[in-house]
Amino acid sequence: MLQKISLARETGKLTAFWSQRTVAEGNGNLFKVAKGTGSTEWHTHHDQDETFLLLEGQLTVQLRDGDVELTPGDLLVIPRGTEHCPKVDGEARFLLVGPEITSNAAGGKPAWSYEA
Amino acid sequence: MLQKISLARETGKLTAFWSQRTVAEGNGNLFKVAKGTGSTEWHTHHDQDETFLLLEGQLTVQLRDGDVELTPGDLLVIPRGTEHCPKVDGEARFLLVGPEITSNAAGGKPAWSYEA
Repeated sequence: MLQKISLARETGKLTAFWSQRTVAEGNGNLFKVAKGTGSTEWHTHHDQDETFLLLEGQLTVQLRDGDVELTPGDLLVIPRGTEHCPKVDGEARFLLVGPEITSNAAGGKPAWSYEA
Repeated sequence: MLQKISLARETGKLTAFWSQRTVAEGNGNLFKVAKGTGSTEWHTHHDQDETFLLLEGQLTVQLRDGDVELTPGDLLVIPRGTEHCPKVDGEARFLLVGPEITSNAAGGKPAWSYEA
């Protein structure tokens, strides 16, 4: 039988900020959860669009032409080639949707984001 | 500048039940919102997986081997070829993620679901 996925439960399992945890797959896309605090580095994904859906908290996506402020239930597609830098006051939890290939510039994460 | 999409605002624009409204695109996938009440017909999508993310209300996905009860923040991937029948007590609002191609069996909707 198919199993539903509670996004709140999955984000609750996250141990590191800015690390993505894959929770489901459909049509070759991965559904990943992550949590953020502070900000990442400015970066660009040249090979894929990045879709954020904010679940909890507040997330500011800084763009070179201005900031986009997300509140829970807001979705933002960052087209490939668009430089961006997510920033969080406090803590934010979000869903990411993207292809199964690893981005050629998945980075931007601060050094302290990586899990052991 | 990129525009965020408020899923609550987009579901608020829906005028018919079980009709999908495309709100964003990324990596060849469409992000669509819909609202449901009552139930659809039993149906199967043979050519694509269907991903539900429940936003508001309660949604029961009936499967031939049992029911999956979704509450807001729950995600369910229905693999292609899996017969299913969504059912809603009251009203539910949800996000669907799928490829840009139209399903070969998009149906299952009750006759009264269609917009003029």
